[in-house]
Amino acid sequence: MTVTELAASAKKAALVLARLDTATKNRVLEAMAEALVNHTDAILEANRKDLEYSKQENIPGPLVARLAVDAHKVKQMAEGIRSVARLEDPVGRVQGTTELDEGLILRRVSCPIGVIGAIFESRPDAVPQIASLCMKSGNAVILKGGREAQNSNKVIVSLLRQAIAGTPGVPEEAVQLIETRAEVAEMLEQDRYINLVVPRGSNEFVRYVQDHTKIPVLGHSEGICHVYIDEYADVDKASNIALDAKLQYAAACNAMETLLVHEKVAPKVLPNLTARFREKGVELMGDLRACSLVPDLQKASAAEWDTEYNDLKLAIKVVDDRGAAIEHINEHGSGHTDTIVTENREAAEQFMNEVDSASVMWNASTRFADGFRFGLGAEIGISTNKTHARGPVGLEGLVIYKYKLFGCGQTVGEYSGEGGKSFTHRPLSNDTPL
Amino acid sequence: MTVTELAASAKKAALVLARLDTATKNRVLEAMAEALVNHTDAILEANRKDLEYSKQENIPGPLVARLAVDAHKVKQMAEGIRSVARLEDPVGRVQGTTELDEGLILRRVSCPIGVIGAIFESRPDAVPQIASLCMKSGNAVILKGGREAQNSNKVIVSLLRQAIAGTPGVPEEAVQLIETRAEVAEMLEQDRYINLVVPRGSNEFVRYVQDHTKIPVLGHSEGICHVYIDEYADVDKASNIALDAKLQYAAACNAMETLLVHEKVAPKVLPNLTARFREKGVELMGDLRACSLVPDLQKASAAEWDTEYNDLKLAIKVVDDRGAAIEHINEHGSGHTDTIVTENREAAEQFMNEVDSASVMWNASTRFADGFRFGLGAEIGISTNKTHARGPVGLEGLVIYKYKLFGCGQTVGEYSGEGGKSFTHRPLSNDTPL
Repeated sequence: MTVTELAASAKKAALVLARLDTATKNRVLEAMAEALVNHTDAILEANRKDLEYSKQENIPGPLVARLAVDAHKVKQMAEGIRSVARLEDPVGRVQGTTELDEGLILRRVSCPIGVIGAIFESRPDAVPQIASLCMKSGNAVILKGGREAQNSNKVIVSLLRQAIAGTPGVPEEAVQLIETRAEVAEMLEQDRYINLVVPRGSNEFVRYVQDHTKIPVLGHSEGICHVYIDEYADVDKASNIALDAKLQYAAACNAMETLLVHEKVAPKVLPNLTARFREKGVELMGDLRACSLVPDLQKASAAEWDTEYNDLKLAIKVVDDRGAAIEHINEHGSGHTDTIVTENREAAEQFMNEVDSASVMWNASTRFADGFRFGLGAEIGISTNKTHARGPVGLEGLVIYKYKLFGCGQTVGEYSGEGGKSFTHRPLSNDTPL
Repeated sequence: MTVTELAASAKKAALVLARLDTATKNRVLEAMAEALVNHTDAILEANRKDLEYSKQENIPGPLVARLAVDAHKVKQMAEGIRSVARLEDPVGRVQGTTELDEGLILRRVSCPIGVIGAIFESRPDAVPQIASLCMKSGNAVILKGGREAQNSNKVIVSLLRQAIAGTPGVPEEAVQLIETRAEVAEMLEQDRYINLVVPRGSNEFVRYVQDHTKIPVLGHSEGICHVYIDEYADVDKASNIALDAKLQYAAACNAMETLLVHEKVAPKVLPNLTARFREKGVELMGDLRACSLVPDLQKASAAEWDTEYNDLKLAIKVVDDRGAAIEHINEHGSGHTDTIVTENREAAEQFMNEVDSASVMWNASTRFADGFRFGLGAEIGISTNKTHARGPVGLEGLVIYKYKLFGCGQTVGEYSGEGGKSFTHRPLSNDTPL
């Protein structure tokens, strides 16, 4: 099957998925969970092959760690699928009802997007996670995982498809797998069949996807997140938040890359805080003023402010005031997540209103920007888009809406010209029976 | 100023617009409306130049008619701006509030998208309409109108900008105008500064825009709309709707291009209905079965089903059943607007659920798919996208949201690992004071 044929079959499947009721989708999800647990051995065997291959290819340790699957992890995958089953169905929600005229009622109802292309790196547990989110939201999905995980992914997808095929009326083409880079390139050309691409991976990779497709892309190419310590900051809170934002998981997209400090508190905050960062092995770079407050700080080059380290590195800048901090973030940030530490409500509100980022925070670590922590249940990705879905994206980001107009023979001619009928445009309750 | 500089200045303006309150925005809109009426003469003079130019260039009559402005039309433009002022402010709406834990509250709030690029054809009244929608939603806008209307557009934009400049705190860079095709090409490259492009014009033009930018595009390249007359249709309703859908304004994107008729009612419906279409000068093409019912019907080529005529032409197909009609629409339609005519509720529900279009209708003309008729107040465009905004798009399509997290010093470390705190994820009322 060519990628075009595969995408066309996914689109066909999507039309069927769009009309499944919640109970059927949850039944499929439960069957998927069971299939994984019941075939743990097959998954582990495939995973062993992937691990051997990684060893041969000298793939770096942290990547290998994310690739490894044991029986406990398979159980967690199944539990993840079941937790998606427990989420509210995002499809079929009435978002608004308007009487256009007597006997002519308009309703806006949520519906699936169609076909999702999901491309991600080595973790095999991304497969059941993404597949279950797409199933629950009534979307078909074409998956492409990392080459390192190809044996694991293949077995997992085939188990998920068996589970789907075992549920009458649900097409197994709902979940598809492609394997090569050439296929990815072909997939990105299927704008006729694929409605949304969700890439998860390195900045370079996400940018490659954005640059090579006409399909809308949901994702963030960079996470240059800031913590701004305001003149009215509580110094202890500020230090705790800054340390957590950098160190709790430095490789995450929502980790802090640049620390901004108001000049009035910089002398009080920086010497102690930089010492604590150093204890943890963080490489520090500062602007001139930061360097003057902390001896032996490396001088930051202009490029630092636009760099996502994803590592134990941090750039520090002393700013004149809150306005300068906001301006720096809007100029150099990536619109992902930024925090102000302050005890002053007005300062916090100004910051949260004026910083143009998906998540803005007051006295909390940037690391909270995450679908699970935000209570979305599960996350398909984090978006720095300014359209469709922004910030951590859960099931809601996988649906759109359609308008349904219920008439009894009306024509537009009746409402046109002199003496034409008028519209009432009366809002109605969403549970008005039609 | 280069287009890049212009786009950068629009982005700067957008950050200011994002924090304007409703009263200020409405004050600007009122000043815009007054400026147009107070300088009617200047607008008419510029418009005369455009009309002369059109004559010289032999621009077709219908285009010239859309280009012409008189004092009454200026008043209508002003009234249009005032009606946008009266719409509810789409910015700052709280869309959800969740307690993540005690003292850690997440709120989702609507906010402007940023900078909109709007490209449209000859009508000068599109300028105040689009500019006012963008102002009300707190977005900056870069406008590009048709060459035929360039003098009118220039004067109108300069009047709008004077009105903006007269309102303290509102940057006149909120509304910008570019004039050449080369500038459009440059504008489509400003994905760093422009967040959404809204093209209005021919299919070829919209497709050109989609093919030449990485910026998300809101629009529809085609409107291949269907009326399906079901076996349970009331024949009079069916005829009225089909006639209205084709004839009420044949050049509109929501006009019918293909008529599908259930084989059981085709003999009853088609002879009379095709005669009425012919009386109105509609050129008709039919599939084999339609041709056998209506003598001297042209035989439709395979390409007809994928063609948007935007003209007094209609393709007619007889289908085996409702499923075949739905399949035909999902295969050949453009996801814009499709109608079923039937007295059977189940049939209507099946059609509205299974047809994958932005607007699906039951016993109503496709021509109702329009922002004004749908009660959105005003329309920035009609979208056949499957993400962000779909169908007729009003102010709501010009906003996105941001997450605001209100904490008191929380770190993610506290919520991690064994013995870590748990999230409460408790939904709160949106008017909970924070």
